Amino acid sequence: MTDGAHSLPGPMPGPMPRTVDWSADRLVVIDQTLLPDHLALVELRTIDDVIDALQRLVVRGAPAIGVTGALGVALATVIARRDGHDGDWVRAQAARLRAARPTAVNLAWGVDRVLARLATIDDDPADPSPPGAEAAISFAVEMLDADVATNRAMARLGADHVRSIVPDPARVRVLTHCNAGGLACVEWGTALGIVRALHDDGHLHEVFADETRPLLQGARLTAWELARMGVDHRVVVDGAAASVIARGMVDVVIVGADRVAANGDVANKIGTYPLALAAARAGIPFVVAAPESTLDARTATGDDIDIETRDDDEVLVWRGQRIAPVESRALNLAFDVTPFDLVTALVTETRVVRLAAGHRLQV
Amino acid sequence: MTDGAHSLPGPMPGPMPRTVDWSADRLVVIDQTLLPDHLALVELRTIDDVIDALQRLVVRGAPAIGVTGALGVALATVIARRDGHDGDWVRAQAARLRAARPTAVNLAWGVDRVLARLATIDDDPADPSPPGAEAAISFAVEMLDADVATNRAMARLGADHVRSIVPDPARVRVLTHCNAGGLACVEWGTALGIVRALHDDGHLHEVFADETRPLLQGARLTAWELARMGVDHRVVVDGAAASVIARGMVDVVIVGADRVAANGDVANKIGTYPLALAAARAGIPFVVAAPESTLDARTATGDDIDIETRDDDEVLVWRGQRIAPVESRALNLAFDVTPFDLVTALVTETRVVRLAAGHRLQV
Repeated sequence: MTDGAHSLPGPMPGPMPRTVDWSADRLVVIDQTLLPDHLALVELRTIDDVIDALQRLVVRGAPAIGVTGALGVALATVIARRDGHDGDWVRAQAARLRAARPTAVNLAWGVDRVLARLATIDDDPADPSPPGAEAAISFAVEMLDADVATNRAMARLGADHVRSIVPDPARVRVLTHCNAGGLACVEWGTALGIVRALHDDGHLHEVFADETRPLLQGARLTAWELARMGVDHRVVVDGAAASVIARGMVDVVIVGADRVAANGDVANKIGTYPLALAAARAGIPFVVAAPESTLDARTATGDDIDIETRDDDEVLVWRGQRIAPVESRALNLAFDVTPFDLVTALVTETRVVRLAAGHRLQV
Repeated sequence: MTDGAHSLPGPMPGPMPRTVDWSADRLVVIDQTLLPDHLALVELRTIDDVIDALQRLVVRGAPAIGVTGALGVALATVIARRDGHDGDWVRAQAARLRAARPTAVNLAWGVDRVLARLATIDDDPADPSPPGAEAAISFAVEMLDADVATNRAMARLGADHVRSIVPDPARVRVLTHCNAGGLACVEWGTALGIVRALHDDGHLHEVFADETRPLLQGARLTAWELARMGVDHRVVVDGAAASVIARGMVDVVIVGADRVAANGDVANKIGTYPLALAAARAGIPFVVAAPESTLDARTATGDDIDIETRDDDEVLVWRGQRIAPVESRALNLAFDVTPFDLVTALVTETRVVRLAAGHRLQV
């Protein structure tokens, strides 16, 4: 990966670049590992760069991962055209991209949609280079733009739904986990997109952001987005979220999703499931915001979702300093599964499905 | 506070000093802020030293706090004798000690027991110095030794109880939170005392230790104690504990307590309550280990417990580096309350009370 020419000063308001973007045959992303200290763009020039960015969480968040997968295939066609690789090479790179992270279904979705588009284009037997680089790029860029439209539609539906289920729709208090904001998408956000819509409508009172160990996406990314929006917010350790809920300090929990199984079970960042338990006990709604591309008809239930286990050192080492004894190991589950009966509502760009009330999810 | 003459190398097996000790009119404690990197003893020479040690969590854990409160009053009598202060001065210092931390009832208990002992000693009107320094010291030292005996009795009762409620009593898998080990007491431990007893009996398979943000008592202290014991263990982020439980990886959750209300509601380190929710959902037992001195007849329910709110920077700053934007605030609740109906059993040094089964707690 190469440090981009763009390096934007300061975290505070100003034009916000897209989290993932394509410009003049270049794939450019915000390096989220540097936030909140630095807002910097990096260019991903090779498929290895893209895979590394996905695995090190330079790019993270299910929708952003999906679009990055799609643009990664477009990048593969650009490289193939330049270096004389054939269509098999492009498909092999696509398979590598698809395997970069196992839990978010959006990655395979993004990769496969561009591959399917390529397959519809007639091959010229006289030309060994893969067909359709331009078509792949324009289709992936359409997906980029569609993500923004999807988020905005979801935010509108979600904000209306939230106002309909809280005690005071003009003064909504939200708890969220990890980052399901513009940084998890192309821009705008899913769960945080709903928060943004409530804020724009003047109906948001306060947001509690779980810090989200081990990588602190809540403290680093969500708090940064909320600060940019000018939203009153407080960061809490993950173990405190259940107390914030039990003490009546929030009206609704809103989170994103990395994969939704056909029965409505939701895989999301580790630490989501206990929030659903706490919300159910307190009798407040637990809302999941995710685009239709996150719904996975081929996964029957949460038990069938492959949960990524990441390196021990993400838990045991903090900015180079070990926090536990050298003898200690960790179990670093990246995601958890919230059973559908704890999900009050699943909000997508087209519908609100009330799972806890017994509605079936049609994927 | 003064760095002690004693500084013990390395974390690994060797004779373990008491967490809190009294020797030749000196109050000496392990500085737990330095673990797991350094095992060092510090001497607390003034009441300000003792209050600072309590507030900075140099000494923490309800039983250790209680004994430190008792020894703090003994130290006050020693200082009064040396510097010519009167009994009112001793009582004023005791009041300062009692207020150092609000949630653990053991602190007031320890302070008040020594004060009550002093009140039984006849004052000599001709002598302006406070009476009973020797009596106060010997009584506080008795409490020190009694804490160890209490822990061992609780561990025996608790281990027997745990074996009676898990699927395979010869291979128990435990999840614990924060540190309720020897470092939370004088030695041995409450929740971790039960773990130690199971380990000594050859009946312990594995322990999962929640890291316990914000101050990482699980990763720093519990993992260190488990490593010293030679117990197989893994550290998890707090948000992962509910998944470890839901996935059937542990048979029982065992935690300590900072205060138990008269109805059985349990205040313990922030992040305990969601474990109880997860255990209830998974149908595994949730066991609280606490000495009788932690039961508070004067507090009717958990709603009446004063929950300490600590400094934002414990959440937002890590070893001098800020992790969230400068605009962000935190809510740093130090404890949470687990309702009694989620507590399978409360184990003290004299009894096992099955709260979730409807048994009433007689305090």
